[in-house]
Amino acid sequence: MSARIAHPAFASKVMSAEDAAALIPPGASIGFSGFTGSGYPKEIPGALAKRIKAAHERGEEFTIKAFTGASTAPELDGVLADTGGMAFRTPYQSDPHLRAKINDGTTNYCDIHLSHLQKLINMGFFGKMDFAVIEATAITEHGEIIPSSSVGNNRTYLDIAEKVIIEVNSWQADDLYGLHDIYYGMDIKPRREPIPISSPGDIIGRPTFKVDPSKVVAIVETDDPDRNTPFKPLDDDSRAIAAHLLDFFDMEVKAGRMPPTLWPLQSGVGNIANAVLAGLMDAPYEHMTSYTEVIQDGMVQLIDAGKIDVASATAFSLSPDMAHHMNDHARDYHGKIILRPQDVSNHPEVIRRQFVIATNGMIEADIYGNVNSTHIMGTKMMNGVGGSGDFARNAGYSIFVSPSLAKGGDISAIVPMVSHTDHTEHDVMVIITEQGLADLRGLAPRQRVNVVIDNCAHPDYREALHEYYDRALKVSQGRGIHTPHDLGQAFSWHQRFLETGSMKEFKA
Amino acid sequence: MSARIAHPAFASKVMSAEDAAALIPPGASIGFSGFTGSGYPKEIPGALAKRIKAAHERGEEFTIKAFTGASTAPELDGVLADTGGMAFRTPYQSDPHLRAKINDGTTNYCDIHLSHLQKLINMGFFGKMDFAVIEATAITEHGEIIPSSSVGNNRTYLDIAEKVIIEVNSWQADDLYGLHDIYYGMDIKPRREPIPISSPGDIIGRPTFKVDPSKVVAIVETDDPDRNTPFKPLDDDSRAIAAHLLDFFDMEVKAGRMPPTLWPLQSGVGNIANAVLAGLMDAPYEHMTSYTEVIQDGMVQLIDAGKIDVASATAFSLSPDMAHHMNDHARDYHGKIILRPQDVSNHPEVIRRQFVIATNGMIEADIYGNVNSTHIMGTKMMNGVGGSGDFARNAGYSIFVSPSLAKGGDISAIVPMVSHTDHTEHDVMVIITEQGLADLRGLAPRQRVNVVIDNCAHPDYREALHEYYDRALKVSQGRGIHTPHDLGQAFSWHQRFLETGSMKEFKA
Repeated sequence: MSARIAHPAFASKVMSAEDAAALIPPGASIGFSGFTGSGYPKEIPGALAKRIKAAHERGEEFTIKAFTGASTAPELDGVLADTGGMAFRTPYQSDPHLRAKINDGTTNYCDIHLSHLQKLINMGFFGKMDFAVIEATAITEHGEIIPSSSVGNNRTYLDIAEKVIIEVNSWQADDLYGLHDIYYGMDIKPRREPIPISSPGDIIGRPTFKVDPSKVVAIVETDDPDRNTPFKPLDDDSRAIAAHLLDFFDMEVKAGRMPPTLWPLQSGVGNIANAVLAGLMDAPYEHMTSYTEVIQDGMVQLIDAGKIDVASATAFSLSPDMAHHMNDHARDYHGKIILRPQDVSNHPEVIRRQFVIATNGMIEADIYGNVNSTHIMGTKMMNGVGGSGDFARNAGYSIFVSPSLAKGGDISAIVPMVSHTDHTEHDVMVIITEQGLADLRGLAPRQRVNVVIDNCAHPDYREALHEYYDRALKVSQGRGIHTPHDLGQAFSWHQRFLETGSMKEFKA
Repeated sequence: MSARIAHPAFASKVMSAEDAAALIPPGASIGFSGFTGSGYPKEIPGALAKRIKAAHERGEEFTIKAFTGASTAPELDGVLADTGGMAFRTPYQSDPHLRAKINDGTTNYCDIHLSHLQKLINMGFFGKMDFAVIEATAITEHGEIIPSSSVGNNRTYLDIAEKVIIEVNSWQADDLYGLHDIYYGMDIKPRREPIPISSPGDIIGRPTFKVDPSKVVAIVETDDPDRNTPFKPLDDDSRAIAAHLLDFFDMEVKAGRMPPTLWPLQSGVGNIANAVLAGLMDAPYEHMTSYTEVIQDGMVQLIDAGKIDVASATAFSLSPDMAHHMNDHARDYHGKIILRPQDVSNHPEVIRRQFVIATNGMIEADIYGNVNSTHIMGTKMMNGVGGSGDFARNAGYSIFVSPSLAKGGDISAIVPMVSHTDHTEHDVMVIITEQGLADLRGLAPRQRVNVVIDNCAHPDYREALHEYYDRALKVSQGRGIHTPHDLGQAFSWHQRFLETGSMKEFKA
């Protein structure tokens, strides 16, 4: 048995992933660890998937309800989705196999703001949770759980689940101990106290999770890497978007609306976020901070370069090389990187208090500044709203970014009307594409139109967007032109794409 | 001079409303007091309107930019809108004359979350504010301003405006002094402290506004009542909606998700809110509290009956009779009613911390639970989003209510797709009409459809809604059925109404 399982009461619970999965009955509600490809259980989901498949082959029903932190990895969402037995999933995902099951109607996907989940679970709305299946770095001699590379909803799942299964993953560095800040003040009760974070570096909790040892029914030892995705080289669009964003920061700092350290940064995951972080390396800002969901490579590099003093998040999302580096040097980042429960990383209270600069990706925006983050052509779920709404509505700055084109130019990210709204016109301050930046603050809807079209839409679509607006203004006369629309044509671009494969051939 | 102007430095500033208005030049940005028909300046706006009209008659340009707390009254929004010179208005309104100017394109209306305004103003995004025009109950001997019947954004306007004009209204009761809690911790700065409210009764500030006396350029004495609207008798729909809501509270209390005191109540203004408050009079809950925007008659009655211990808001919105009562007995309500700045009453931090039960009106909801609070047929601004988004996203419970029909049955409040989205599917937990209640918590979009249609839509429209969904499901097959839609028909009901005056004759 690994030295990482230091508490004697847990020794007798060590077993194989198969034996642990065998404890989970059909119909179980399971709270899994895992947030953006880190800290998810590596072996039990696969063993459970085999068990579900075997039951299906015998003609037996076997479904589960799956709760996580956010997206996980093929070893969890992928294998369980493939069984067709994942009847329910919340709160966020990005797995292609699971996406297929959500969009063919197999899996009921409850796509909610990450910060809402803890409240709904702790209020008991989702009913009892049967199992928590949580990856840990180690179990201390006092029976406390040292988190691994993500915190997510683990505190909640460990507290509320009737039975607990822990994967102790020796691939995770011992030195992660001390990097986490687990806050236990989130009870649902009258007179709850404020969350005492005024700055990303504030430590308000403890380094470990508590767990009732009598609930722990299995421990599984693993030695498996997080499924990290390699760092992609930056493309031109991402670099252009990052440059517009950095220009905007310059303007805001010069105008005195941002301090020279900037406000704490939040950013989504992926290419554009990496480009922004790369851009900040050469920007004049010093002593920056981050209050965000995930720590990407670029964030670690900014810390190494002394540009960022401290970054608060709920998970790592590193390339394999950077994950290796972090495993070797985790101790060097204590106090510089803080991983918190996602109900703290995403809490409106702390986001609003700190004037966080929230930068999130989008699928499309319309000429009035409404944003669709989730649905392709109005009906197909891509990933989910995730934490973007926690940040966008409550941030000091809410910024949405996307290349202006998709599908080789057949889709415009700027459309007459978004086919699904995740961020309303009241929540979107700035839109950026590689073409430029639209600053919508303080503008009435009609004033936003030219700014969005001329600054952000691809030139191939600008004329058609202006034509839509002119027609919308004409047909709305007398009916109210606060937000002109021609409802009969508002989705004509999306329909054209569905029918012809391109938004380009539009009706005049 | 009134004894209410106790500070000697202000004596020389007393003048007529006309003389005060003459100080305001064309192009001025003005922060007015006023929130839902209370505490707005009564005479200067009218005098300013005359000045603007006279300029227009002389062929001169004269526009102003108007900031308020929320809606005001005919004496402010009405008279200024009528001049055609209100070029800009934020953050909320409900005046028919102003609505007309917004919808004919005269007034650029920036419809934002009430809690966002202070941040944008204090960050300096709206540029300098030339004037604050604020109604007060009195000015103390130390030169502090005793608020009147609303607090709204007055602290911010008094702080930031270059010049200040105060209307001292002797109609407002002297005994309002001590009812207000003006918090001064909202500076835009790093390391801001938490707002230390854990319960609606917590007092965290001071009873008066501070003002730099050197900025005060005019004092106008008035003796004018707030434009309160009489209490309407409750109609059957409102009573039915209230009954469904109270049943829901019962269910939640029995399930242990709400304490027997309920969570603090927020509710919009109007008939349905009054019906809910009336229903609570006979409900079994004791020691209730309220954390909301406005104090309506029913709230005062619940306090009088000992059912509600304390109510926190930013303004009164009383009938003339109740306003009279409050003027006579204000002292009795000290500690039971607390009026705060709207950046505190609507702050996400305090709303989320207290698990507020947010109940707000809507124009329409769709079969997936998206809500339109602002736009008639997608283009015409009705009132605005107000504080509904501050509460809905951050509340413990977010509930939207409306009669199922409007315009004598020609409009269904439940539609295939909302024509404008103010509250996304991620923010709407419960929808109530007089028909019933749809509890959407934890449901995927397709699961919500029958609940919304069968519980909330009027029977006249149910079949057609099911038909829409069936067709949407069919055309979305293969494209993704997470949220089925037939984009070509999604607004067919709205178009039918625009063309024929009724949603009823729909295409099969």
